[in-house]
This record gives sequence, structure tokens and C-alpha cells, in this order.
Amino acid sequence: MTLSSARMDNPSFITVPVPLGDRAYDILVGRGLIESAGARIAALGARAAAIVTDDHVGPLYAAALAASLEAQGLRVSVTTLPPGEATKSYASLERVCDAVLAAKIERGDLVVALGGGVIGDLAGFAAAVVRRGVRFVQVPTSLLSQVDSSVGGKTGINSRHGKNLVGAFHQPSLVLADTALLDTLPLREMRAGYAEVVKYGLIDDARFFAWCEANWRGVFAGDHARDEAVAQSCRAKAAVVVRDEHENGDRALLNLGHTFGHALEKITAYDSTRLVHGEGVAIGLALAFRFSASLGLSPQADAERVEAHLKAAGLPTRLSQVPGSCGTVDELLDAMAQDKKVKGGALTFILARGIGRSFIAPGIAADEVRTFLAGEISA
Amino acid sequence: MTLSSARMDNPSFITVPVPLGDRAYDILVGRGLIESAGARIAALGARAAAIVTDDHVGPLYAAALAASLEAQGLRVSVTTLPPGEATKSYASLERVCDAVLAAKIERGDLVVALGGGVIGDLAGFAAAVVRRGVRFVQVPTSLLSQVDSSVGGKTGINSRHGKNLVGAFHQPSLVLADTALLDTLPLREMRAGYAEVVKYGLIDDARFFAWCEANWRGVFAGDHARDEAVAQSCRAKAAVVVRDEHENGDRALLNLGHTFGHALEKITAYDSTRLVHGEGVAIGLALAFRFSASLGLSPQADAERVEAHLKAAGLPTRLSQVPGSCGTVDELLDAMAQDKKVKGGALTFILARGIGRSFIAPGIAADEVRTFLAGEISA
Repeated sequence: MTLSSARMDNPSFITVPVPLGDRAYDILVGRGLIESAGARIAALGARAAAIVTDDHVGPLYAAALAASLEAQGLRVSVTTLPPGEATKSYASLERVCDAVLAAKIERGDLVVALGGGVIGDLAGFAAAVVRRGVRFVQVPTSLLSQVDSSVGGKTGINSRHGKNLVGAFHQPSLVLADTALLDTLPLREMRAGYAEVVKYGLIDDARFFAWCEANWRGVFAGDHARDEAVAQSCRAKAAVVVRDEHENGDRALLNLGHTFGHALEKITAYDSTRLVHGEGVAIGLALAFRFSASLGLSPQADAERVEAHLKAAGLPTRLSQVPGSCGTVDELLDAMAQDKKVKGGALTFILARGIGRSFIAPGIAADEVRTFLAGEISA
Repeated sequence: MTLSSARMDNPSFITVPVPLGDRAYDILVGRGLIESAGARIAALGARAAAIVTDDHVGPLYAAALAASLEAQGLRVSVTTLPPGEATKSYASLERVCDAVLAAKIERGDLVVALGGGVIGDLAGFAAAVVRRGVRFVQVPTSLLSQVDSSVGGKTGINSRHGKNLVGAFHQPSLVLADTALLDTLPLREMRAGYAEVVKYGLIDDARFFAWCEANWRGVFAGDHARDEAVAQSCRAKAAVVVRDEHENGDRALLNLGHTFGHALEKITAYDSTRLVHGEGVAIGLALAFRFSASLGLSPQADAERVEAHLKAAGLPTRLSQVPGSCGTVDELLDAMAQDKKVKGGALTFILARGIGRSFIAPGIAADEVRTFLAGEISA
């Protein structure tokens, strides 16, 4: 079975169009894309490109990407930042903006983000604000960034008040998701990214969830299932983004599993040795389905099926799996109330009426959540 | 004679609509607007307002503005920054964003910029990026900001590579231009702002330039001519911005006088004791008309009329009036070539075929400029 119905750019590449009017762009998915990146990026018509990367990814791919761009006649600069969430800071923003300006990037030129979500968010934000907006290209190098952060145009940095609280909506001009780059990704990061893949099935595509159950080993192993999973995730996210570019409505569905997940990240102090984002999302997805079942909205069997698949893929699904402590009921509630998706003091959850049938549930009473979490903690 | 054909909000206030589709907003112009600011801002539907101001303006008006907002039931915070161009920095951006987040401003709430161009540009940029965009209101307190920087949605900060190189297009939700606030403005600042008023006539409205010649004393004295001049300037700028919101074409006409002006600001090291922006613009306007005349594009008589009016209003019109040195021909050319409006190495000027008949002239040869400037310096 193949999910692909998109036009093919090349027998081995899948093209996912993101039809956002005058901000429309393509996401290309496939093995070995980085080798032809220069020609594809040069086709956008720029005369110069400022590559932004980190100390993990830069040494592996930056020189080849730069050479590939230079071979097309582009002027190229490379800025390399420390890896990790702490790089999404005001100081890094200043550093990247200054580097982009020093590289004499003008409005027709490009910033190229080569890295995971941190680099994509930071470099995209710099591109949004240098000269009040220059174009940028995403070359995401992790599964998480290929299926999530590189699609949709959300860019930004963290503030002392929370993650991603300062930023811009700025769509890329092109996304090159080279799935061969994932061959060197640590298994834990691969699993964490896979939680977001599963999420797209759970939101509104039961068929894709079933496909994941049948094909997840190929995704991890790197056969064509990986390309399909990345492409289908991008299609799913693009469809939501096209309906609601600036997150005034439907886009909130993408937060399935994230209200619980963000609370767990907060409680573990964003310490990636304890919990990475995708692990929080995996536990959050399992909790969202068990919470939906406990409210009588969704069959218990669906919650069990969700948990079984996440477990099979090596992901955590229970609060007890959070290393150290997952916090008390009140600490979890506090952490959820501080999440930026909380509006006007009411708790908004993404709940489900079954696999592939999620919906936005505003105004969930704190007491309902409290009772549910107390049961989960003592389980 | 009255220039006003806009709908009247109140016998003493003029409303200038800026019809930018779903980003449309009104500019209100008149004496005493700040007294009713609370009700007007509250009518936008926010629950909280973060006022951003500086040490010059804050002590005069912030408490009254805050009280006026609180009387409407809004939660209000005030952040006060040092006055001056140095405040348009990354550090100030971080400070304002943090203050806005600490004030728990959500997407429906407001940032209120109370000050001149520096505060408007900085607070507007913070509003553009906090939570990827919250609304903001401009309460401009200088003539320059009332007729220029508060209209058009350009926001930003300075970089070590140049002024306004990092920012966003972010339209305000409302502009309240209280012309009574200008009563306490130093005469030098009033004159500097007036150079931008004259500019609008010179760009494409010979009738308005003639009106300025007849009414400039009233503008300075603060009679109804001041309100008319501010309103007509806002109408003129709004018309250009509506045609070209993101500065891909016509908006460049607003740079009449600015290529020379920016070069002079650069050569005087942005030292406001030597030259303020509007003074650079005044000299730049006179130079643009004399350059146009020297190229045989515009009547010599028009250049003389422009100079006569700027002189009458107390503004400089000659390079020899720059305190200290205005630099050599080569220094001036270098400074112009570094201006961000230079594209692809060619010098672009805004020239004129006469008063009210300016146009974008790309690809002006450096030698033409050199010859003209040599004559001006030795004059």
C-alpha cells in the first residue's frame, strides 16, 4: 500500500505542495536530496545564501551544502551555533541577524536553516526580521523537524516567560527533507520524532494510524516507508496550516497530546536527559486518549490501541515512566494553566471521539482533570 | 481653504482611514485626543494594555493615559526606557518583550506606544513578535512620528550594520495623534518633523506644498493648520502604503530627500547635536531638487522655491550648514552606497520633474552624483 498521491518530482522524491497563495511552497521528501540542494535552492533565484547550522549537524553537512550552492554561483556564508534548546535565545537571534547582515543578504536572497527544530525556529525568525523579511529554506535534519517544525511557518525563540513566546509567522520558500540524514539520528530522537508522526493519524486519519501500525519498522529502518511517513505527516500538517495559518482555530488540533506533554516538559525543567519533547508528546497522546475514554467520549479500546502502538515503537505512555518525578496533580495542573494555549483562564484540551476523531474541547473544568490525573499518578 | 475631506469623528478631530483590508485602521488627529484615549483604546476590545514610553514623555503623559485606560476596566502596565536612538537595540527589544509577557498580554490585548519614533518603532516591533503578534496602538508625541513613523507599519531596531535593519511590517490597530502634545516640543524638533510634512507636497501634491507655503506659521503656532498638516501628511503616506505595503515599489517615493539625508546622518555619526533626521531630510530635499534641476529634469525655479520655503521654516538646505564637516564627495558617495535602498550596487535616487512630480530613478551613475556634489561642496 502506498499513501502517496502527490506529484512526483523524481522517482525517489515526493513533493508535498503547501498551497498558501503568494506564500505557497513545496516540501521535497526523499533520500539524498541534500546532494542536489544547490541546484534546487539556486532555482529560487537568489544570489547569496547564509547557512545557519549547529555544532552537531554543521560538521557533517555544511561544507557539502555550501559547495553545492557555490557550484551554482551563489555567495555562501556559514554560521554555526551551539546545539540545544538554550540556543533559541535573544543573544543567538542577534548573532544570527548580524551574521546574515554581514553576509549582505538582501530581500531576494536566502537564509538556509540546516539543522533540527532549534536551528529552524531560530534561523527562520532571523529571516523574518532581517530587513523586515528575507526568504528562507529549511533543510531539516531530524525526524521531528522534518514532520513538524519545518512545516507551517512558526518561527521563534524562548523567553524567560516560556518557550516560543517571541517569534513570527514566516513561511519558508522551500523545504528539503532528506530522509537519509536520519540514518545517523540517535534512536531516542528517532522515536521522539515518531510520536509526532503517530499524532497525525490520531488527529483525523485513522487509515494513516493503521498504516503506522503496519509500517513503523520500515520508518525506523529507513526503507521507503520512512519517506511515506514523512511526506504524509507534512501533507497532514500542511492541510491544517492552510486552513488556519495564524492559529486562530483549527490549527490547535496539532496540539493533540501537547497540553499534557508541555506540562511534563516544564516539570522536568526541559532537561532532555529526563524527557525530550517527543516523549512528552507520546505520554500526552496516551493521556489524551485515556482522558477522552474516562469522560465517556472515546472507546477504551482505542486508548489501549494508541498505547500499544506507542509502546511497540519504544515510546513512554505513562506518567510513571517520567524519570525522577512527574510532579503532583497540582503541579501538573499549574504547569498546564501556564501553557500559552490557555485562554482566559479556562483549560482547553484536544480530546478525541476515537482514533482519527480529535476535536478542540475548550472550558474543561479543572476538577475533571484533577480526578483523571490522580488516577493516572496512582496507577 | 481646508484640505479636509475626511469624515469627522468629532468637530475638533480628523479621522484618516488607512484601508488595508483586514489590517485597516484609523488615524485620529486633533488637540486633546489623549484625554479620551482610554475609551477609544478600550473600544478595540482588549482586556489589558502594556504602555511603552520613555523618560522624556512618560513623566508627562503616562500616568494620565494609564488612568484613562484603567477607568475603562483595562489592566495596565507601564515600561519606561531611556530616550534616544540607542534605545532601538536588541537589549531594549528583549526588555520590552519581557515586560509585555510579564504583563500577561495575550493575542487580543494591546501594546501602546507612547512616544516618538524610537518608542513607536521599538514597541511596534515587540508587539509584532510577542506571541508571534499582538495588537498595538500608536500615541505619537512628536511631529515627526505623527506624520511619518506612526503611519505605515514599519517597526524595528538598529543593528551594528545600520539603522532599522531588523524589524517587521506590523500595522497598528489605531493611531492617536494628539497635536496638543506638540506644544511642548522643542522648536528644533518641530522644524525637523516639518521637513517630512513638506516632503509629502513635494512628492506628488503641489497644491499641498503651496498650502504649506501659506500656512506653515499656523502649523508651528498650533492653530487648526497644525491638525490639517498632520492629517494631510498621514493621508499622503497612507495612500502610498496602501499601494505598496511591503515596499516593493512605489513606497520608495517616501524616500525623497532621504538618500542624501541618510548619508549626512551617517557622516555626522548620528550625533543629534550636529544633525537630526529631519534636518538631514531638509538638506536632502533641497539637494534632490537641485540635482534634478542640474540633470535638466526639473525647473531651476522649483528648486529655488523648495529651498526658500525650507529656509523660511528655519531648516537647513545646504551642505555648508552641517556643523563640523559634511565630508568629502567620496565620503558622501560611500555613505550613500551603504544605504539599504541601494540594490545590486546601483544608486537609486528619488528625483523630480518639478514640485509634486517626484519619481524613482534607478541606476543613476556615480559620476553624475560626484559632479553634482563637488559643485555643492564648493558652493
